[in-house]
Amino acid sequence: MSATYKDHAASIDKRVGALFKAVPSVMTPYSQLVKAASADGALASKTKELMAFSISIAIRCEDCIVFHLRAALNHGASRDEVLEAVSVAIEMGGGPSVVYGSRALQALEDLT
Amino acid sequence: MSATYKDHAASIDKRVGALFKAVPSVMTPYSQLVKAASADGALASKTKELMAFSISIAIRCEDCIVFHLRAALNHGASRDEVLEAVSVAIEMGGGPSVVYGSRALQALEDLT
Amino acid sequence: MSATYKDHAASIDKRVGALFKAVPSVMTPYSQLVKAASADGALASKTKELMAFSISIAIRCEDCIVFHLRAALNHGASRDEVLEAVSVAIEMGGGPSVVYGSRALQALEDLT
Amino acid sequence: MSATYKDHAASIDKRVGALFKAVPSVMTPYSQLVKAASADGALASKTKELMAFSISIAIRCEDCIVFHLRAALNHGASRDEVLEAVSVAIEMGGGPSVVYGSRALQALEDLT
Amino acid sequence: MSATYKDHAASIDKRVGALFKAVPSVMTPYSQLVKAASADGALASKTKELMAFSISIAIRCEDCIVFHLRAALNHGASRDEVLEAVSVAIEMGGGPSVVYGSRALQALEDLT
Amino acid sequence: MSATYKDHAASIDKRVGALFKAVPSVMTPYSQLVKAASADGALASKTKELMAFSISIAIRCEDCIVFHLRAALNHGASRDEVLEAVSVAIEMGGGPSVVYGSRALQALEDLT
Repeated sequence: MSATYKDHAASIDKRVGALFKAVPSVMTPYSQLVKAASADGALASKTKELMAFSISIAIRCEDCIVFHLRAALNHGASRDEVLEAVSVAIEMGGGPSVVYGSRALQALEDLT
Repeated sequence: MSATYKDHAASIDKRVGALFKAVPSVMTPYSQLVKAASADGALASKTKELMAFSISIAIRCEDCIVFHLRAALNHGASRDEVLEAVSVAIEMGGGPSVVYGSRALQALEDLT
Repeated sequence: MSATYKDHAASIDKRVGALFKAVPSVMTPYSQLVKAASADGALASKTKELMAFSISIAIRCEDCIVFHLRAALNHGASRDEVLEAVSVAIEMGGGPSVVYGSRALQALEDLT
Repeated sequence: MSATYKDHAASIDKRVGALFKAVPSVMTPYSQLVKAASADGALASKTKELMAFSISIAIRCEDCIVFHLRAALNHGASRDEVLEAVSVAIEMGGGPSVVYGSRALQALEDLT
Repeated sequence: MSATYKDHAASIDKRVGALFKAVPSVMTPYSQLVKAASADGALASKTKELMAFSISIAIRCEDCIVFHLRAALNHGASRDEVLEAVSVAIEMGGGPSVVYGSRALQALEDLT
Repeated sequence: MSATYKDHAASIDKRVGALFKAVPSVMTPYSQLVKAASADGALASKTKELMAFSISIAIRCEDCIVFHLRAALNHGASRDEVLEAVSVAIEMGGGPSVVYGSRALQALEDLT
């Protein structure tokens, strides 16, 4: 675990970059899928990143929480929007989403 | 399994209603939690229901898919918005989200 | 899906029996593990089956719900004990545990 | 649920085909990802489909079980290979993999 | 990760406390739900916390393991009762529950 | 978290060894199950360990990733075989498998 979630985010980028180089035949279409799934459309990119962030809490994936929280913030998500996405995850995930949501809140402090 | 997802939705209501009567001490605060988590706020109720729907696909919960899809539609979600929420789930869940997303699409046809 | 959860329980027995015959080298030690894990000890067998039942709801495994609910009832679990195990699952699983808990309640009606 | 797993497999094809038409921007790169991930390489396609099948049991995704079992059989997987992939899933998933493994065995009977 | 599970437990309290302040509208009813679900009833609070602990292992949520193990110990759970709850999780979760159960055992040493 | 995945693997051995001593009645049959499930048969032990490794990524269990990656390498798995098992996990798990796959790649560097 990194000292702060900012460092954590940087370590994810480094690791996923290495994976991209190791299996480009799989990671290239995956990147295209991500680009299509998160593009501005009927739903804004910001909304889609908040959605991916909320899923990340519900499935208890800390790397995913950090990755999609940062992306949502980069698309202009506000603190209130982030907290409401945490709340939906709690509705859908109970106690485990409470503890992962509390990690998400800590990440929100570190990344802003 | 019900004949159509419309019947399926009705059977969920009946079952969850019975659970509410059986354990009101737990279901009453859960309902309050749901009300708070899905209220219009920084994010619209429609967006929150699409978020819960997207989580439902990612975690492979068919009852949840039907329940939150219906709620999103009731809040005015469009077909394109629903399909984009499915797309985010596929980004976050791979093949299993493809097959559960295909069930969601069938539910979308049945419920509209 | 069977017509009632009583039929469903019978179909699980049949299917798992066939699996036992197909892979006895794996299923024999698994049965010994189950026997050890669910034996009366510091916790009663009834409590352990309720625990396995509660896990089954939290992980959304319908076959498991039916299987361990029946076992808990066979060990003398009361309706209130079953409902409280459902409640713990809701605490730990949120909305998905509500809908699977509602299936568990229907199974409770069918099996008693 | 379809009458047999053969019908079930056909219904998956139909549903996933509809999803492909509904969200081609996401499903096209996903198909390329699948093609790359399941191509003959250091591991044979048959092995990779058995791997995807084993994951499907471990994560309790019935549609996925049917889909990847059929693909493994099409690549020449034997009954013993299928049963050993079920066994690895039981090692990694305990009781829930036993009941989903028993569904996989039933699918094996229906598809061969 | 904290140096010991005692520190880990303290960090969870701090994080969840912050989340409570950030989203009281959701966390207040969630606390009421927890209170109702874990109250002495047909099943004792100790049993319910062991149940939540067993679920935590089965779903691989380390924060949850620490949180509910501490609560079970505070309600007087014995070492043998804790180990039997780990055993039920292994029955229901296979290998992943073995490794998370081994973390739970380490937490048991640190917290007692 | 240990400094390297080599240390991490050693810490898993120590922890699981302690669990074995604490609950031998459950861990002894579990070991027999593992021995049967991972024995050379229609599928080679190497293939089975790669399968368990791929499941580990798909279910986001870091201890399991390290444990089964080491076992696969001990059975002679090549770097390409490991990367193809990661690729199948990405097909079956989307983004979360990408980030856990990137941890697996880091473990591959540390363990070889």
